[in-house]
Amino acid sequence: MKRYDLIQMGVDYYPEHWEESMWEPDIRLMKETGVKVVRVAEFAWSRLEIAEGNCQFGWLDRALDLFHKYELQVVIGTPTATPPRWLTTKFPDVLPIFANGETFQPGVRGHRCYNSTSLREYGSRITQHLAEHYSEHPAVIGWQTDNEFGMLDCHCDACNIAFRNWVKAKYGNLDRVNAEWGTVVWSGEYSDWNELTVPLGGSPHQNPSFLLDYQRFQWDSVVAFQRTQIDILRSVCPQHFITHNFHSYPQRLDMYGVGADLDVAAFDYYPNTSPAKQATTPYSGALSLDVTRGIKRQNFWIMEQLSGSPGCWMPMWRTPYPGMIRAYAWQTIARGADTVVHFRWRSAVAGAEQFWHGLIDHSNVPGRRFAEFTQLCHEVNTLEEKLTGTTLKNEVAILHSHEEKAALDIQPQAEGFDYYENIKQIHRAVTKLGVGCDVIDLRQPLDGYKVVIAPNLYLLDEEIVRNLEDFALAGGTLLITNRSGVKTTNNIAVMQPLPGLLSYCTGVEVLEYDPIGAETHKVIDAEGNPYECTQWCDILRPVVASPIAWYGDDFYSGTPAVTVNDFGKGQVYYFGTHMEERFWSVLLERLSKQQGLFRFEGLPDGVQASVRSGDQGSFLFLLNLSRESVTVALPQEYNSLLNHSICSGELQLEPYGVEILEM
Amino acid sequence: MKRYDLIQMGVDYYPEHWEESMWEPDIRLMKETGVKVVRVAEFAWSRLEIAEGNCQFGWLDRALDLFHKYELQVVIGTPTATPPRWLTTKFPDVLPIFANGETFQPGVRGHRCYNSTSLREYGSRITQHLAEHYSEHPAVIGWQTDNEFGMLDCHCDACNIAFRNWVKAKYGNLDRVNAEWGTVVWSGEYSDWNELTVPLGGSPHQNPSFLLDYQRFQWDSVVAFQRTQIDILRSVCPQHFITHNFHSYPQRLDMYGVGADLDVAAFDYYPNTSPAKQATTPYSGALSLDVTRGIKRQNFWIMEQLSGSPGCWMPMWRTPYPGMIRAYAWQTIARGADTVVHFRWRSAVAGAEQFWHGLIDHSNVPGRRFAEFTQLCHEVNTLEEKLTGTTLKNEVAILHSHEEKAALDIQPQAEGFDYYENIKQIHRAVTKLGVGCDVIDLRQPLDGYKVVIAPNLYLLDEEIVRNLEDFALAGGTLLITNRSGVKTTNNIAVMQPLPGLLSYCTGVEVLEYDPIGAETHKVIDAEGNPYECTQWCDILRPVVASPIAWYGDDFYSGTPAVTVNDFGKGQVYYFGTHMEERFWSVLLERLSKQQGLFRFEGLPDGVQASVRSGDQGSFLFLLNLSRESVTVALPQEYNSLLNHSICSGELQLEPYGVEILEM
Amino acid sequence: MKRYDLIQMGVDYYPEHWEESMWEPDIRLMKETGVKVVRVAEFAWSRLEIAEGNCQFGWLDRALDLFHKYELQVVIGTPTATPPRWLTTKFPDVLPIFANGETFQPGVRGHRCYNSTSLREYGSRITQHLAEHYSEHPAVIGWQTDNEFGMLDCHCDACNIAFRNWVKAKYGNLDRVNAEWGTVVWSGEYSDWNELTVPLGGSPHQNPSFLLDYQRFQWDSVVAFQRTQIDILRSVCPQHFITHNFHSYPQRLDMYGVGADLDVAAFDYYPNTSPAKQATTPYSGALSLDVTRGIKRQNFWIMEQLSGSPGCWMPMWRTPYPGMIRAYAWQTIARGADTVVHFRWRSAVAGAEQFWHGLIDHSNVPGRRFAEFTQLCHEVNTLEEKLTGTTLKNEVAILHSHEEKAALDIQPQAEGFDYYENIKQIHRAVTKLGVGCDVIDLRQPLDGYKVVIAPNLYLLDEEIVRNLEDFALAGGTLLITNRSGVKTTNNIAVMQPLPGLLSYCTGVEVLEYDPIGAETHKVIDAEGNPYECTQWCDILRPVVASPIAWYGDDFYSGTPAVTVNDFGKGQVYYFGTHMEERFWSVLLERLSKQQGLFRFEGLPDGVQASVRSGDQGSFLFLLNLSRESVTVALPQEYNSLLNHSICSGELQLEPYGVEILEM
Repeated sequence: MKRYDLIQMGVDYYPEHWEESMWEPDIRLMKETGVKVVRVAEFAWSRLEIAEGNCQFGWLDRALDLFHKYELQVVIGTPTATPPRWLTTKFPDVLPIFANGETFQPGVRGHRCYNSTSLREYGSRITQHLAEHYSEHPAVIGWQTDNEFGMLDCHCDACNIAFRNWVKAKYGNLDRVNAEWGTVVWSGEYSDWNELTVPLGGSPHQNPSFLLDYQRFQWDSVVAFQRTQIDILRSVCPQHFITHNFHSYPQRLDMYGVGADLDVAAFDYYPNTSPAKQATTPYSGALSLDVTRGIKRQNFWIMEQLSGSPGCWMPMWRTPYPGMIRAYAWQTIARGADTVVHFRWRSAVAGAEQFWHGLIDHSNVPGRRFAEFTQLCHEVNTLEEKLTGTTLKNEVAILHSHEEKAALDIQPQAEGFDYYENIKQIHRAVTKLGVGCDVIDLRQPLDGYKVVIAPNLYLLDEEIVRNLEDFALAGGTLLITNRSGVKTTNNIAVMQPLPGLLSYCTGVEVLEYDPIGAETHKVIDAEGNPYECTQWCDILRPVVASPIAWYGDDFYSGTPAVTVNDFGKGQVYYFGTHMEERFWSVLLERLSKQQGLFRFEGLPDGVQASVRSGDQGSFLFLLNLSRESVTVALPQEYNSLLNHSICSGELQLEPYGVEILEM
Repeated sequence: MKRYDLIQMGVDYYPEHWEESMWEPDIRLMKETGVKVVRVAEFAWSRLEIAEGNCQFGWLDRALDLFHKYELQVVIGTPTATPPRWLTTKFPDVLPIFANGETFQPGVRGHRCYNSTSLREYGSRITQHLAEHYSEHPAVIGWQTDNEFGMLDCHCDACNIAFRNWVKAKYGNLDRVNAEWGTVVWSGEYSDWNELTVPLGGSPHQNPSFLLDYQRFQWDSVVAFQRTQIDILRSVCPQHFITHNFHSYPQRLDMYGVGADLDVAAFDYYPNTSPAKQATTPYSGALSLDVTRGIKRQNFWIMEQLSGSPGCWMPMWRTPYPGMIRAYAWQTIARGADTVVHFRWRSAVAGAEQFWHGLIDHSNVPGRRFAEFTQLCHEVNTLEEKLTGTTLKNEVAILHSHEEKAALDIQPQAEGFDYYENIKQIHRAVTKLGVGCDVIDLRQPLDGYKVVIAPNLYLLDEEIVRNLEDFALAGGTLLITNRSGVKTTNNIAVMQPLPGLLSYCTGVEVLEYDPIGAETHKVIDAEGNPYECTQWCDILRPVVASPIAWYGDDFYSGTPAVTVNDFGKGQVYYFGTHMEERFWSVLLERLSKQQGLFRFEGLPDGVQASVRSGDQGSFLFLLNLSRESVTVALPQEYNSLLNHSICSGELQLEPYGVEILEM
Repeated sequence: MKRYDLIQMGVDYYPEHWEESMWEPDIRLMKETGVKVVRVAEFAWSRLEIAEGNCQFGWLDRALDLFHKYELQVVIGTPTATPPRWLTTKFPDVLPIFANGETFQPGVRGHRCYNSTSLREYGSRITQHLAEHYSEHPAVIGWQTDNEFGMLDCHCDACNIAFRNWVKAKYGNLDRVNAEWGTVVWSGEYSDWNELTVPLGGSPHQNPSFLLDYQRFQWDSVVAFQRTQIDILRSVCPQHFITHNFHSYPQRLDMYGVGADLDVAAFDYYPNTSPAKQATTPYSGALSLDVTRGIKRQNFWIMEQLSGSPGCWMPMWRTPYPGMIRAYAWQTIARGADTVVHFRWRSAVAGAEQFWHGLIDHSNVPGRRFAEFTQLCHEVNTLEEKLTGTTLKNEVAILHSHEEKAALDIQPQAEGFDYYENIKQIHRAVTKLGVGCDVIDLRQPLDGYKVVIAPNLYLLDEEIVRNLEDFALAGGTLLITNRSGVKTTNNIAVMQPLPGLLSYCTGVEVLEYDPIGAETHKVIDAEGNPYECTQWCDILRPVVASPIAWYGDDFYSGTPAVTVNDFGKGQVYYFGTHMEERFWSVLLERLSKQQGLFRFEGLPDGVQASVRSGDQGSFLFLLNLSRESVTVALPQEYNSLLNHSICSGELQLEPYGVEILEM
């Protein structure tokens, strides 16, 4: 009954922003353009409940009836990211408190403490009212919880109490807290529960075990807050799906926890339009999409998609180049998006987001970008049947963890060392090779993968290690990098040689390390080819592993930099240093041959390939995400789904050109 | 009776900073040097009212009697920029409150909320006492209100209430407020007047219509505060003039509102002494002076003029190069200053301003700078009769508006886009051409101008448009640039193609725009000459206008970048992009020929020309504001006023050399 | 009885951080390694007093008994830098208040206001308990007060009251305060003592005389706070010495006042390990050591010495290069350290300092750095007898003052002008020449020196001037630089030509000055050699002095830049500008010949020489503090103390190589 897997286009629309007389012309034009889905209401609390308990849904009824009249489906956002002024005035505890004691004042958005009892009470109430009211509306298909959850690091009294309870629940008593956090350092020991507060003052030099648990508490607070809405929606609207729109990565959030309660994840995707970033944007974008697909390890939605120049809190970006809107929408589908909702139908004429441009400009005259969107809708609707139900099946996975990132952010390792940037570099190397790749939570089962790359496994426990070891023992190729095995999951350094719990499978021992930071050192591979490395140099003793590259600098010149260890039926690589991308490319290419990975060879720069498969067949997406025209050599003959021709040999892709080929 | 049009020199003097025994020697030396005017007392509140109601004017009486004895005229500053400690201790509401709730603590200066009732009451009282006491003093000729008004963005309770009343007065009811500000976006609607506060927390992402009205409220608060003093001074001292000393531009202030209540505007002028800024300082300085002249569209005073190296809150600047003090004083007169008061007689030995150097150093030994000032006084006094009563009569105007600037600052348009910097660039092009130029408020009548340049008319209403259209219809040449017609004056985007209300007179329509920011694109003119453009590219459809330059880059290459439209008897140019200065120079040179503008041709870099005219004749000022000696080709024979010789042919100007020629 | 002059090695150890079972193995290994001294307990308040009045010294007893068993001596730190949570919860007045009113929250360290009565009461109590308990313990030899005193600029009520009393004690009445601080400027006059507060709000633009006195008050607060502990320790443990560990310079602290109450000063020395800083680190380190030796003008301790890569609040540094740990330890001895305590035995596994690496890594496997430390201990123990009791006897002194630095920081003089950096430059020139140099407080007697360099004597009084004049009159060579004699010690500008009180001995008068800041100007010496100068140019009139270098730029080109004046039997140089280091080298080389200074000639870059002498003889230290191997030409034959060979001719020093030669 719940369907959220249709390949279709949508728009974000704010009826409350426009004269009611504009609604029907707008919606009629949506219909004509080929739009199928609309998201509404996620910021409309002050219109939906104009005073305490005074709900006014009439306007939304009329809008939804119009959507229904034109056969558009609707996702309703719960409006809790924007508590109205009557609520924050009456219950100031809704407002978050910064580390320095200042209040997150109303007037923008996101001014809500996830642990505020007032927010939870009134947020649940409006959710309940909305759910009951729209449970049976024929246009409504699903719900979005709140909007773009993010960490607020709130320091209010409610958070203090909630955090104390969270710590109690985790550790039981203060002796154990003191022991697990190592508070004896600098006389930070707690002797009374009331001494335990959230990190007031915000100093980054506080106990890192405490800081990491505070992060976890905040993550859990979001999940718990969302669950108050999920419970209502599941109970009142069992036939509707539930999603949430995650936004730009890296995100300081337990996406996996938030996602576990959803039917489908969604992402707000605004690839940078600047030609100066053309070399990296398509790849960091691809990573974002792969991360989103990894949240639930299934297809996803885009809830806000690039439609014009973003602006507002920064100077406006470049306008999307011709083809860019279409190509980036196809990129999301190529990487597992089903429905792609564009933000927004028309640019706002009022409020802070006036220059976050929609498909139609303030003038309300549809222009170049709208024409491109119209073409896109037409194409997507034509291919809907073919593509619906298809998914990506990859043989490579990169492991990702918000916990590793948080711990590595709490204590900087070396200048230039950045957990997510390191993932980006590896992901880019894989993507440029033409190999598909999943990005999944560290603790996920690894069945089905041939190669798993697990960078910077800083925090470890036995469970993670067993998962990795089992994968390798069974024949998998596992790649591990430096700063792994450094800590327990409580952010306490282990008292054993690094990589700690991974010493066994990697077969190496770190004798010492040298945080070279932004300096560039040299590494030589077995063929004598030179590469550059940065960030970190582990000085390694290969216990049973074999070196495959050696340092070429400093007092450890000639010692191993990268090793490989035969482990069970598989192999475990260890990178003692942060190798440049080229080294990853060479190694991954070799592995792809060894492992017989599916790969689209010979991709020019800026061109991405991916495959969606299903009962209807397999479909190869070739996307030129650059301003230059390029040629791609096709290894065989294909049917083009977009122009119904047969393609072979040299395929010409115009700037932002898109091909979808039946395999 | 009130005279403030004499061409003369003055100094700022602080009797309260020095032993009384030094006063007469100082004043005698002023007299001998040729000083005519002195400003006093603008920071002396703690000496004038040593405790609540305990006024002690004896010391100032004695100082003023000495000034009178030596025939020096005196301007008294009301001391309200420095409330004494007894006042702020008793009435802490005098102190402004920052957006984060912190107090602007006493101990520096400017620690006064313009809306504080205590400040207004005690400020009026001391003003009343001073006015009554000095109304008939023979040395006193005028008053300066407060000192260097500036925006404090106060967030105190008094400001909250005053702002609420200001909004009520403007809009009447909350429904209209919500509608005019578009608060529905992000559920920001007000349901009770008490919810309406000044922008607490200071987030720049608040509603831009609200933020702009808050700016206007703050501007009006300054005007209202000043008026409390104006009313007293006008009533008690009708024979005295009133001025205020504006400071560095761009200034976030309604200078026109403040100026409307004054007899004469004044400016505090500290051109940068660094040789590294020599290429721009003389031109940004010229603009400052033209802006000041435009406040009341009449001659003005300099109330603080460069006398030595400034310092104190920044590292000290270079000492003024020989000739610089004299040349920059003449520059102010050349651009409409009558009286030039130098800051300050002698450097302070105590307090935070010790290194803001005066004419005489701490040592009290007059040196090189004082000798130069002495020469200057002598020259000015010699020419006083000739020059007094003369003014500038320009045929070109640049329109300026604190409202446009505020709105453009609230929402950044594109990287590098800066309203005032854009004006600077155009003004520099005009000035380098040797063409005189006024800089006036957007809403001023335009009679008498041949060319009007109106950059970035972002906010518009019908009245502004009618003024511009009438000017062009009557034969004027109007130049308009991109980001015009974007908004209503309430900072709401218009729902019509840009340039909105200016579409009719410009004859163009903006199809779309591309915020290129700091990137450089190419533009080609009709002769095929290439130019650079930055910031912004409107993609234009010339409805009835004719292109005169075309883009040379990106997907809109070949489309019009600059157009001209015949409109009535005049012409309207539209710049779709931010052209480099050279393009302005070429176009303005052509216009100056077409329109027969008065122009001094062939100015070398760093040399400025301007003309003051009156009943006594017309006087051409040629100022070499550079460290290099230069030669200027004179188009005719002139009498030099400074050395009584006849000049013709090649005129040699030494570094910082000055010539004043009778035309 | 008190001995703190032994040449020996120590470590910092935290028994409370480790399982008790690890103590004896750790201490046994210390003993085996050659460690003689251990510092303990300086952060252990929460373990020593687990609740108010509940002291638990058992664990420390057991640890100290073990130290005694293995014949290790112990220094105990009073734990007042880390008040426990029960104390700050019960007495929040312990916590400092920032200028903006926010609280310095517990959770890190150093969260204690020196003027808090609660801190003083409870700090004295725990000190008393510790002193009484360990007064007779056979392992204990001394005490460290608190840890790394630093300025907190506290703004709490206790500080307000204490500051008011401090000002009262200094000036007596408010009239005098107003006069001495010149508060009349900007109406800052105090009319009631309650108006006088610490600098709330923290604006740097407050009255500079007030700001300087506030600094002095804060300095005195540290001294007074320390004295509460000193008094107890002296009375209870007269047989123990007392020290304090100063940290990185420049330090905003009255080190001389703090040091006056100590038996011996100590320093925490972490030379930068980055190869990119190799050219400067050894010299700024040498200066730090000379500054520390100057605190009491006697030998000193290192209480924390580089043992591994520092990290934690910044990205980790490079690991110490092989030899670096040993060479930098020898450098401290070469410059007057007796005991060198390394921080720390083993890296912490918990808390914020996990990545401030100790001699042994988290793994507890002794590695390369520990082996180097072992060698060092062996060498030091071998030479202990020879070196104990020896000291440095230098003929050159650089005068230093925290007061000059504070005043120059309060009011920036010119871009790039930095008091301590200027001292660094001169000290580096002296050190590279191979000349030994003391760095002592401005007000110290100068007997025994041949050359005294006194840079930037900004604040002056007659006593300082007399000291300097007497030195020169008696035959000394005195070098004085610009920005001297500018102010009284109350930070008020003098009303006489500069260099003010130094005009007489320098024989020059500053006519005017030009703050050239970061610009580079030219200076020519008598031989016509060109040099560069920056920061400042005094335009000089040599009254009786003779120029030795002249400006080559700007309007004062050709006028004197540096002068020398015969004064009594000596000479006084005046530098009107900030000369590049090369000029100092040339001049100092000439002076070293003229004055017959002891000098080790021909030092390669990065190599430092110094001499310790005593009854046992004189010992020349040659230290290669670089990653390159170098050759040093020996002027004579020496016995090498380290390898018992005879050295002469060309001495080869490996990277970080050390030689100690008997002279």
